[in-house]
Amino acid sequence: MNVILLKSAVLGDSVYLDDAYLCQHIGQVLNAQVGDTLKIGVLGGKLGHATITRLDKLSNTVQGVQLSNVVLDRPPPPKLEMTVILALPRPKVLRRLIMDMTAIGVNHIVLVNSYRTDKSYWQSPLLSRLDEFVLEGLSQGVDTIAPTITLAKRFKPFVEDVLPSLPSPIMLAHPYSDLTMEQYAQNHRPKVLIVGAEGGFIPYEVALMEQSGAVAVSLGERILRTEAAVNVLLGRWL
Amino acid sequence: MNVILLKSAVLGDSVYLDDAYLCQHIGQVLNAQVGDTLKIGVLGGKLGHATITRLDKLSNTVQGVQLSNVVLDRPPPPKLEMTVILALPRPKVLRRLIMDMTAIGVNHIVLVNSYRTDKSYWQSPLLSRLDEFVLEGLSQGVDTIAPTITLAKRFKPFVEDVLPSLPSPIMLAHPYSDLTMEQYAQNHRPKVLIVGAEGGFIPYEVALMEQSGAVAVSLGERILRTEAAVNVLLGRWL
Repeated sequence: MNVILLKSAVLGDSVYLDDAYLCQHIGQVLNAQVGDTLKIGVLGGKLGHATITRLDKLSNTVQGVQLSNVVLDRPPPPKLEMTVILALPRPKVLRRLIMDMTAIGVNHIVLVNSYRTDKSYWQSPLLSRLDEFVLEGLSQGVDTIAPTITLAKRFKPFVEDVLPSLPSPIMLAHPYSDLTMEQYAQNHRPKVLIVGAEGGFIPYEVALMEQSGAVAVSLGERILRTEAAVNVLLGRWL
Repeated sequence: MNVILLKSAVLGDSVYLDDAYLCQHIGQVLNAQVGDTLKIGVLGGKLGHATITRLDKLSNTVQGVQLSNVVLDRPPPPKLEMTVILALPRPKVLRRLIMDMTAIGVNHIVLVNSYRTDKSYWQSPLLSRLDEFVLEGLSQGVDTIAPTITLAKRFKPFVEDVLPSLPSPIMLAHPYSDLTMEQYAQNHRPKVLIVGAEGGFIPYEVALMEQSGAVAVSLGERILRTEAAVNVLLGRWL
């Protein structure tokens, strides 16, 4: 957590935090003391700092933090103008992916069904915790603006009706494409990245996406885990 | 697992696999049948394919796989000419990092101590399983050549004596540097990347590494998890 995110605050304000997770972080991880300055941000608003003027402890555990002299003087960093479309991954991987994409500054995330997406993934309780993962990502990446997240449980309607309306170029990461990243990157900077789940997309899905304007590009001979592939691709276009 | 890696095999050979993990993968994940062709590779050698000529099952679980007509006709993909020096991360993160760096093709990995590395990490049983994580990374990335891994438990001697002998340019990822990636990348392509653990390096460590030739570069205003940062950086230089 590289910034403490508040739901609301105004210049010169005092804010009292009693969220258990934030208090634990301020007390245990930062080991912060009265008088220390903390980096803060307001969700949807600016970044800045505030001073700790009181720490309420119960048997050495911080239960509440009084922040005063709130200064909010910096805009959040600019977003990456990038939509990432992801075949819904395993729940365990989902959390880290949402966190990382948020921290990197992706402004629109689409989770789409695919043939190789296990049906049970759509029932995962983690899917109802996306806001939490976004918040972790914002706190990590020192940002205040959440990305938009779209769930597309039906592949075909999404690819046929929605994909063509997204900004182009649309790049599909596909290990078995003849077109390499090196060739593609010479003339294109994608605004939409599509990445499959473990096992990738099946040929029918690839063809359908290509009909809707996606260009299949291989990262090279090496095949990466979804998580690594997303970060590597975003790194290429950062 | 995108390739089945064997300890040894020669052209035209027959190979019998009874490794539980490989058998489970071939049986359950690939759901392979007699007559199917599998992508194979020989550790330290070439890539190719072989045909399944027998599956030995015990109550529906594959216990052994007979591979015949072994063909080894392709060299492994070229390595990325890159050394990654990493402050030893949390054990849980270590496995994925080693896997990903191996899959991406990093040819030398150094795990170094740092002020913010918890001492207990050096006692982790996972440190004795690095070979296993490398094997997972090779199977993921379709490679046969393991990276070299060096453990540097003492920061200062490593930075003073070893770092200057590594190929330059040496880039240190440091969120608080004034020099941005964009500026740096115009004239440099690093051969060594240094990435800190959670919390980054302390100023003393940064200064020592700079004295040994490292240039501190910021990825931008956003701060990423070690894992994401490594993949993003490698993606930039892939």
